[in-house]
Amino acid sequence: MKRHVVIYDTTLREGSQCVGISLTVADRIRLFNELDNLGVDFIECGLAGGSPKDDAFYKELANIRPVHAKPVAFGSTLKPYEDADKSPMLKALLEAGTEYVTVFGKASSFQAREILGVTEGENLSMIEKTVSRLVLCGKKVFFDAEHYFDGFSENREYALDCLRTALGAGAECVVLCDTNGGVLPYRQREIIDETLREMPEIEGKFGIHAHNDSGAADYATVEAVLAGAFMAQVAVNGWGERCGNANLFTVVPNLTLKLGCDCIPDLGKLYSFAQRACEISNTKMWDFSPYVGRNAFSHKAGVHIDAVRKNSSSYEHVPPEAVGNSRRIMLSEQSGRAAVIAKVGELLPKLGCDADSAALIIDKIKELELEGYRFEGADASFEMLVKELLGIRRSWFILNTYKVVVFDNDAGEKYAAKQIEQEPGTPQIPTASAIVDVTVDGREEITAANGIGPVDALDKALRKALTSFYPVIGRMHLVDYKVRVLESTLATASVVRVVVESSDGTNKWCTVGVSGDIIKASFDALVDSYDFMLDNFGGIN
Amino acid sequence: MKRHVVIYDTTLREGSQCVGISLTVADRIRLFNELDNLGVDFIECGLAGGSPKDDAFYKELANIRPVHAKPVAFGSTLKPYEDADKSPMLKALLEAGTEYVTVFGKASSFQAREILGVTEGENLSMIEKTVSRLVLCGKKVFFDAEHYFDGFSENREYALDCLRTALGAGAECVVLCDTNGGVLPYRQREIIDETLREMPEIEGKFGIHAHNDSGAADYATVEAVLAGAFMAQVAVNGWGERCGNANLFTVVPNLTLKLGCDCIPDLGKLYSFAQRACEISNTKMWDFSPYVGRNAFSHKAGVHIDAVRKNSSSYEHVPPEAVGNSRRIMLSEQSGRAAVIAKVGELLPKLGCDADSAALIIDKIKELELEGYRFEGADASFEMLVKELLGIRRSWFILNTYKVVVFDNDAGEKYAAKQIEQEPGTPQIPTASAIVDVTVDGREEITAANGIGPVDALDKALRKALTSFYPVIGRMHLVDYKVRVLESTLATASVVRVVVESSDGTNKWCTVGVSGDIIKASFDALVDSYDFMLDNFGGIN
Repeated sequence: MKRHVVIYDTTLREGSQCVGISLTVADRIRLFNELDNLGVDFIECGLAGGSPKDDAFYKELANIRPVHAKPVAFGSTLKPYEDADKSPMLKALLEAGTEYVTVFGKASSFQAREILGVTEGENLSMIEKTVSRLVLCGKKVFFDAEHYFDGFSENREYALDCLRTALGAGAECVVLCDTNGGVLPYRQREIIDETLREMPEIEGKFGIHAHNDSGAADYATVEAVLAGAFMAQVAVNGWGERCGNANLFTVVPNLTLKLGCDCIPDLGKLYSFAQRACEISNTKMWDFSPYVGRNAFSHKAGVHIDAVRKNSSSYEHVPPEAVGNSRRIMLSEQSGRAAVIAKVGELLPKLGCDADSAALIIDKIKELELEGYRFEGADASFEMLVKELLGIRRSWFILNTYKVVVFDNDAGEKYAAKQIEQEPGTPQIPTASAIVDVTVDGREEITAANGIGPVDALDKALRKALTSFYPVIGRMHLVDYKVRVLESTLATASVVRVVVESSDGTNKWCTVGVSGDIIKASFDALVDSYDFMLDNFGGIN
Repeated sequence: MKRHVVIYDTTLREGSQCVGISLTVADRIRLFNELDNLGVDFIECGLAGGSPKDDAFYKELANIRPVHAKPVAFGSTLKPYEDADKSPMLKALLEAGTEYVTVFGKASSFQAREILGVTEGENLSMIEKTVSRLVLCGKKVFFDAEHYFDGFSENREYALDCLRTALGAGAECVVLCDTNGGVLPYRQREIIDETLREMPEIEGKFGIHAHNDSGAADYATVEAVLAGAFMAQVAVNGWGERCGNANLFTVVPNLTLKLGCDCIPDLGKLYSFAQRACEISNTKMWDFSPYVGRNAFSHKAGVHIDAVRKNSSSYEHVPPEAVGNSRRIMLSEQSGRAAVIAKVGELLPKLGCDADSAALIIDKIKELELEGYRFEGADASFEMLVKELLGIRRSWFILNTYKVVVFDNDAGEKYAAKQIEQEPGTPQIPTASAIVDVTVDGREEITAANGIGPVDALDKALRKALTSFYPVIGRMHLVDYKVRVLESTLATASVVRVVVESSDGTNKWCTVGVSGDIIKASFDALVDSYDFMLDNFGGIN
């Protein structure tokens, strides 16, 4: 049987401390569900009582029924001489309502003295009181031993005492943290080996929490597993303080494919999970990420492409499919053609696509990608494009013209009062009006609508116009709307790519538009979306 | 005396094979000079005879007099049974005019047979003939042993024979290459140790060339140095095929600061070199890069900020100054009072900020972050917010009202002809007009402007209005414009965050705006930006 390594995800907690990451409560819930679906074992959920956002999330958590993962509330040890009955931290941890709790404390005599300003004994007593109280209240406790490796190098006996205290007080396990990310894997390995010699009872009861300040977090985590760690703490994309934490997307495939461990039920889901996680957090996957990056299995040099076609292992350490990614041959028409034929067959099985059509489609895609289009995440727009190129796109409506007016009647007042809050939940006041003029079967229809901002107004007006011809449009709504600015050195006049996700309640589809004008880009994506809906889901005229 | 590790940079060769990197001849010359100035030992200079760009660079190289670095010409071994006198590859290598030459060849029986289609003996003979001919012509030769680690695992004796052949033919050293990036450092270490046992003559004569497909290239390079490698092959930012090579910016500080080796004369120059290298190649430094990234010494969580102020080693593994970087305190809902006081002191040193003001500011930040604001990357908006909260924000202008009209007169035609291309370089046709009404010192000014999309039009109109009062505004322009859609499940009526980067040619600053309406969010960011400019860089009324 394969060895199971417990995957403990800290994206919702330490990932949120990452510069550039700001997750709303709704984002956190979506990410939690996605992580659960991926099959990680534990999900750390933000500092208990740390901010209104954290509180709101813990409240929502009560309504979530994860299938696989266990949520973990996160907090610190008691303050020196703090009364456990009156500690707001302990209160928040208990009220979080999770079966598991992680508390962090110092495992370094230097840190206890210099940063907390307490004696070594006081620090041990803080650890002991916090863990034992939580255990008494029925919690299963993980102890994050901060600064363990530096602490061990400074004062080995004390660092070990911190671990002993936590385990003695009833902690399920201790997590060895390289808090400032400065310990290289060879030294970390020495310390773990010595720890195991001094404290054999720790076997199977320690995890690893690495930081990437020396560029080695991912491998340090693997090396710790080799040394016996039963749990790896990771985050989506390695998000975390400073240079980040160990990266879920590197650690899990390395453990699975290189060490033969068992981590998540289906590694092949990793790539699509990674894309969705980036979407949820509105960040871009780093193209150079091992395993899940766009370039991870891309080949540019001619000699590499030749070799990969002869034998993929020449320049691919694992098959891209193992993690759900795929090979990208840059500037190679032939493999491109086969891929396009396969894709058209998937989207339009009745149609068939010969080599000539495929070549036409590839040429068009190359042109449009140069303009900023990406069809990877926008199958519905790809389908519309193929139909157009093959001369079989049905024109459900003709757009004669549109106009949008954006206004701010009380701008002066609002500018002065910018910092005065609206009540939460107050409906937003419309700030744009749109006029749309369409023709269907020779009948012209002009409609107008108000909206929050120009895109919203335009969408509402167009929907109104179309619904009078195609009532089925009434079932359709937009579920997501994303804007990416391309060539951003041109500032406000730069090119934007808009991706729109639509749904009719049952099906979901994505469309894309690109333009120098955000309104036009949005509009193109909307038109594709309406056409797709009418083509595929009941456009009864 | 410190052990010297030879730094061999491959940016100009393998770095150019990296997706997204395209260096002109002029770029290569600048980068060569910068690398020389940094003090690396060897600079690999592109495939000899590989492309017109490579040829042009080798021609220019004759005019460069490096102070420290030696240029290295790069090429492959001879083809099977190729006549050394007639080989275009050898000719190009010799004509490159460098003292040092690197040739790559297969060190794997599998690769020789499957990819080159030659016998094991033929492959050895190709290595032997190539190296000995170059030595005969007076070159110092490095041999890149491709696929060495995989080759060793498959057929150890043959992989060793390849090394023996290269050294026997007169190569100065062999470079052990993990060509597909799949070997983890622990396994690589085992192979190097076994290689040294089998072939003790290799001591001090082997280098390392790692790939990042398993996320371990940087540490693998350090581990190889621990195992005895005298040379580390690295690239700027780790640029290279697929997930890249070992990163100069991580490997050199690790070797210097963690292993106590001597690599480059002044590590303190690293950060500014890194900035210039990114500029030259028109790329953005990855913010999360260890040592030289913008976030490498950034602190966001309140508890981290407090601790770093007490003792920087808590959350900094090395002093940022060691590599020429500096500490950044980021403000967010997780920041404590001390962080805010420090930040206000940094931005507004004359002002001072007491504990009460800090508490006021923190509360406001928390509120605004819940709305979607983020001040981490928007110092200028933070400064404006602080001034506003403390009652010292100067109102340079009052915005009475604005209106934007977005139009698409020929929408019908365009929709039908959507797929017909514009000529590249055609100026974009305006698609929006904005009217702005502002008052300065009791004088009202109404202006209008056209633009590509509503934000561009609004910016142009506002700039026009303000320039008539404050000519200094004419110097200002936008350098970046970013849009993030928050709570995106609400689709087009969701909240957007706009970040604007502005410059007056000398200074750069960032501002942020959040609203349900992208126009309003952009507008708020623009207002902060104009106010900041006028406050700080010469708002002479």
